[in-house]
Amino acid sequence: MTELPGIVITGASGRMGQMLIQTVVQSDKARLVGAVERAGHPWVGQDIGQAMGGAALGVVVTDEPLEAFAKAQAVIDFTAPAATLQFAKLAAQARAVHVIGTTGMSDEDIAKLEPCGRHAVIVRAGNMSLGVNLLTQLTKKVAAALDDDYDIEIIESHHNQKVDAPSGTALMLGEAAAEGRGVALADVSDRGRDGITGARQKGDIGFVAVRGGDIVGEHDVMFATAGERIILRHVASDRSVFARGALKAALWGQSQKPGEYDMLDVLGL
Amino acid sequence: MTELPGIVITGASGRMGQMLIQTVVQSDKARLVGAVERAGHPWVGQDIGQAMGGAALGVVVTDEPLEAFAKAQAVIDFTAPAATLQFAKLAAQARAVHVIGTTGMSDEDIAKLEPCGRHAVIVRAGNMSLGVNLLTQLTKKVAAALDDDYDIEIIESHHNQKVDAPSGTALMLGEAAAEGRGVALADVSDRGRDGITGARQKGDIGFVAVRGGDIVGEHDVMFATAGERIILRHVASDRSVFARGALKAALWGQSQKPGEYDMLDVLGL
Amino acid sequence: MTELPGIVITGASGRMGQMLIQTVVQSDKARLVGAVERAGHPWVGQDIGQAMGGAALGVVVTDEPLEAFAKAQAVIDFTAPAATLQFAKLAAQARAVHVIGTTGMSDEDIAKLEPCGRHAVIVRAGNMSLGVNLLTQLTKKVAAALDDDYDIEIIESHHNQKVDAPSGTALMLGEAAAEGRGVALADVSDRGRDGITGARQKGDIGFVAVRGGDIVGEHDVMFATAGERIILRHVASDRSVFARGALKAALWGQSQKPGEYDMLDVLGL
Amino acid sequence: MTELPGIVITGASGRMGQMLIQTVVQSDKARLVGAVERAGHPWVGQDIGQAMGGAALGVVVTDEPLEAFAKAQAVIDFTAPAATLQFAKLAAQARAVHVIGTTGMSDEDIAKLEPCGRHAVIVRAGNMSLGVNLLTQLTKKVAAALDDDYDIEIIESHHNQKVDAPSGTALMLGEAAAEGRGVALADVSDRGRDGITGARQKGDIGFVAVRGGDIVGEHDVMFATAGERIILRHVASDRSVFARGALKAALWGQSQKPGEYDMLDVLGL
Repeated sequence: MTELPGIVITGASGRMGQMLIQTVVQSDKARLVGAVERAGHPWVGQDIGQAMGGAALGVVVTDEPLEAFAKAQAVIDFTAPAATLQFAKLAAQARAVHVIGTTGMSDEDIAKLEPCGRHAVIVRAGNMSLGVNLLTQLTKKVAAALDDDYDIEIIESHHNQKVDAPSGTALMLGEAAAEGRGVALADVSDRGRDGITGARQKGDIGFVAVRGGDIVGEHDVMFATAGERIILRHVASDRSVFARGALKAALWGQSQKPGEYDMLDVLGL
Repeated sequence: MTELPGIVITGASGRMGQMLIQTVVQSDKARLVGAVERAGHPWVGQDIGQAMGGAALGVVVTDEPLEAFAKAQAVIDFTAPAATLQFAKLAAQARAVHVIGTTGMSDEDIAKLEPCGRHAVIVRAGNMSLGVNLLTQLTKKVAAALDDDYDIEIIESHHNQKVDAPSGTALMLGEAAAEGRGVALADVSDRGRDGITGARQKGDIGFVAVRGGDIVGEHDVMFATAGERIILRHVASDRSVFARGALKAALWGQSQKPGEYDMLDVLGL
Repeated sequence: MTELPGIVITGASGRMGQMLIQTVVQSDKARLVGAVERAGHPWVGQDIGQAMGGAALGVVVTDEPLEAFAKAQAVIDFTAPAATLQFAKLAAQARAVHVIGTTGMSDEDIAKLEPCGRHAVIVRAGNMSLGVNLLTQLTKKVAAALDDDYDIEIIESHHNQKVDAPSGTALMLGEAAAEGRGVALADVSDRGRDGITGARQKGDIGFVAVRGGDIVGEHDVMFATAGERIILRHVASDRSVFARGALKAALWGQSQKPGEYDMLDVLGL
Repeated sequence: MTELPGIVITGASGRMGQMLIQTVVQSDKARLVGAVERAGHPWVGQDIGQAMGGAALGVVVTDEPLEAFAKAQAVIDFTAPAATLQFAKLAAQARAVHVIGTTGMSDEDIAKLEPCGRHAVIVRAGNMSLGVNLLTQLTKKVAAALDDDYDIEIIESHHNQKVDAPSGTALMLGEAAAEGRGVALADVSDRGRDGITGARQKGDIGFVAVRGGDIVGEHDVMFATAGERIILRHVASDRSVFARGALKAALWGQSQKPGEYDMLDVLGL
């Protein structure tokens, strides 16, 4: 009988760390084998389940990542660039898959991952939601398949506390559509439609932003022409989708050769 | 056996006139008994069905409205203000219900209808679609029932040839929402959202406009709060909805006392 | 000093049961005084907070409902019809308000509640959210305003663990539509459409049930005719809206005379 | 000078038949050479243009299909399975391209087309629109990319005259999803959900059918898991998209070798 892959979570006390721990514990495809925090954190030495205010999980929070990684098949890491670069070396040493959801990494940071990727599998993405990554790819393909008789509109809805419009994800989808069509988004972007706008310009990519309540995030990419419309839609109802995506990447990485990958590889697109 | 109510269509050769004729002919609740055009129009004297390029309907286009109205129970009229004022007098004389879908009538024009309404039933509305009128009423009621923990957003979609945003109907819905809440729309209207907008202001009514393909007209009024959303949605897929609404008004008017009515009366709201 | 009303939750280990417990515990208007499970359930005898994987709450799960109800001012019950009928008798005996969110109750089941309602307050609703109850009222009004040229369809989506279809809320909306139209739902209900169905019968009220993922609950009431559709839509994104509604009903019931009530009474709609 | 390909339309009096006739007549790439109806139909012997309520088109409706097919280069056929099987034999005999948009054909029916495809070109598709065929491909890819933690549901909406459920297009999408997942649709199909169904079976592909008004055709393929949903949506707003696709298939078929083809072949997708 093969044992389930063992997973270590770094930054275990953080909001994302706790969500990752719950996701691994609830999965029937992986086991939680480690929880890492920085030296001096009050949770070090405690059972991670109890530290989170629940039942014991039999995993004690440690400040010695290499020791934890050595017993694991994968490390899931949503921490900060400096810590992630340290973890990347240790994960490579332990030959554990390193799933990186850390944001804010510079091009230099990313370059430093390269030697680690020679010894172990690294999966890194700015957005770990399977659905959003998939939608981005689909958007590019459909934009490439259809000509500009199909008007492209990107409609996104978010909670009433969001301070910017359109959302970063909407812009990512717009970039994918523009790339599929072989144009620069900046040349065709149509935002903030209001007043006497004139007829829609052929080839434009429109953006509209709906705000209300506690909507987690909804994105529609519409391709509309005479007589028909195709709409690619993503609805996020729970921020745990990032944790689920990361776990999927960790499992997928078990059967890969060393190297650097992203979520599109995981999705096989 | 009671005969079905007889209907006369004015402006019979126009796009809306022809649509009204088809609607009455296809209905099993009314009979077409007259088709009116201005003196000198080439269709006068021809069978209206043949003039429209189809089979004969047994109704000859006339330029004598009073004669036509005298044989009818209702007149449906989407012409122009001056003609409509003439027809109103003749319909009152004939004691026929006068359904007015004519747009662009001034307050003075409307005042001139008053004496006619003492002798006959007049139903007049800027928009004869049952659905849109109903949605407007529902919007007002829901806005009155819910407090401003519910964020109101009005999302409309139209074809790529539309030159203004938001649509007139979206603004009408916004007015209804503001009225339900007891505020002035101008004070709370949030349009053209783009860039660093800051968090949504409580009490705002947001508008967004989607443009693409040949969408006839879709309107959503969303009330969003923590944990739930109510959405009142109207989809127009065919411009014939205006003709259907007018016919419904003509039939409804048969059992009313003389007076001036609108589509809300017809809908019983 | 008046003590806060004491609440018992039945089906305490279920998804809804746990949500109710959290809602009562977090409220500053009520106290949790009991948690009931069926005899033989592994949680019986454990502290409910610890059984849920959290801190102790000082309430031990019991399989003796009458004992628990006797100490309470209200029972909140989202279980199954057979259990609910038992609980109704015991709640009446204990003179506790019985809030029933159980779905799938037959007309016979409901008739059996009648003697209980002579001794205690019963609040029963297919759905405890403000939005859904508002939607129910709108549905009735719109169904009354439109004739049967408008086909009514009720489309509901729920998570993949739901065992019945259509949802209780969908049926409640169907009842409202039938009532608005002056017909009996049983005579016009069209469910489980599959295969060679023939054309849709005029006047029918159709139901369709979508199941997938962890969808909390979405309901569309569609009125479709030639050229237009009106859709009244409710989206619940967080199960806590039902729990908050149920708690509101339990508190409201404290000042009512014995009898059977619904959420429209509670919300004063 | 090469003559334009001559087209025969079967089921000429039906809604789709009339749309096909208009599309062929308006095209500058094909000629209408025949219109077929069943023996005894009142239109037989009349000019098809006049029977449709318009000007004469010089084509008399016939109940002798072979005679009509013998003069044609292609037959476009949106009738019913039994009629289509007859037409397939006659089209093969006449060496005319047979474009089949008929829905509700069983596997046995389809098997019976095989001998006909040895003598003539057959193009058969559950749906002839570019958008739907694109959606079918996307569905297969997404189903292959996501595991069965994602519940697949296919939701379709059509007008109230449609006699079968689910639609042929919905089944086509279901086949694509099953193929992407490497399962047989028959093993996982979940239709007509009603009553006490139990929890959704993992891996099932669900179908629901909404019927109302004059909805041309809307299809959603939903992939729902905990925390997110991806929805691939197609909206047909004008039946002419199917007629244009069918005509495109008829023209494409002129240069193909005998055999059975689908719209992916025609569109080169």
